[in-house]
Amino acid sequence: MHTAPLKTLEVTLTFLREIEKLKTITRYNRTLDGRYENSAEHSWHATLMSLLLVNHSEGNPDPLTVAKMLLIHDIVEIDAGDTWLFDEDQSHKHSDESTAAARLFGLLPEPQATEYKQLWEEFEARQTPEAQFAAAIDGLQPLLNHVLTGRPEDGTLPASTILEKKAYIRAAAPQLWQAVESLISDSVNKGLYTLE
Amino acid sequence: MHTAPLKTLEVTLTFLREIEKLKTITRYNRTLDGRYENSAEHSWHATLMSLLLVNHSEGNPDPLTVAKMLLIHDIVEIDAGDTWLFDEDQSHKHSDESTAAARLFGLLPEPQATEYKQLWEEFEARQTPEAQFAAAIDGLQPLLNHVLTGRPEDGTLPASTILEKKAYIRAAAPQLWQAVESLISDSVNKGLYTLE
Repeated sequence: MHTAPLKTLEVTLTFLREIEKLKTITRYNRTLDGRYENSAEHSWHATLMSLLLVNHSEGNPDPLTVAKMLLIHDIVEIDAGDTWLFDEDQSHKHSDESTAAARLFGLLPEPQATEYKQLWEEFEARQTPEAQFAAAIDGLQPLLNHVLTGRPEDGTLPASTILEKKAYIRAAAPQLWQAVESLISDSVNKGLYTLE
Repeated sequence: MHTAPLKTLEVTLTFLREIEKLKTITRYNRTLDGRYENSAEHSWHATLMSLLLVNHSEGNPDPLTVAKMLLIHDIVEIDAGDTWLFDEDQSHKHSDESTAAARLFGLLPEPQATEYKQLWEEFEARQTPEAQFAAAIDGLQPLLNHVLTGRPEDGTLPASTILEKKAYIRAAAPQLWQAVESLISDSVNKGLYTLE
């Protein structure tokens, strides 16, 4: 049996109340019922994807570490907002998100405050097998979501641009590249990306 | 490096496409932006809660197993719908959900189809430390969400009814009971439950 003081429970609940806000941070993709997808449900989908696809990874990433990373990777958006992969100005993204990570993970009791802030930094740095695989899954999930929920009238991008922006997946998780190509091809057929 | 055949990747993607639907299954609680909470974002919140509160558990549950259970515990609702804890008729719940589990987890390749169907059955049976703790977290998350997003005008229940319906948390994870009482007390103060 683990034991931990009640004070720790109260402090953890403060963090768990704060992250309710992630359900209000919307992304650029949609849901099947026509809303904009939010970062909480994206995180659920990506975390489960990672556990089901971990046998298609490189370097034997630890599944629990990958799952933790994906559950918390977007929490910084509560303060910093979501930045679309195709936004031209990404210059403020990292410093805003670092400030957010310090405040938000700082709500946790120790040692979790340090553990989760370090996990977020590890994810951002993309150097370990866990961070590389988590980043590949974070890039794959929107392609799967978009082919199911996208609408050509919302605007299209060239398939070549998508392939270029997603090229990091090929380096991080080459066994997933087949899925990237297959989803992009399905989206072209649905009129969501253009061939040019 | 793990290797798995491309066919397995395609089959897994079929399941991952199907579960997009969980984002459209709404619950009885709300979000901060006034929607009804859906089972995907609830699952995200509950999974992260479990990892952050596992040191308040009994019987040393394995965190990865608990996380997997909570990520998939509501997927059966894609076929069977959500059943509110306070609905009077719960008689069809289990058989409908068992049929749903067979179809949905059956979309996965082996050995994952068997692994995840067994995890769902273990969660439902509430016998192991992992299932008991996951069930306690699944019961705690709506109390935390409700105090943040509930509206008295949507109707109130007596606090005594909530305490009775949530009593299983005390048995499954006695160290979390303090959180249950604290959240219910906050909700009474906000006019979300009545004292009678």
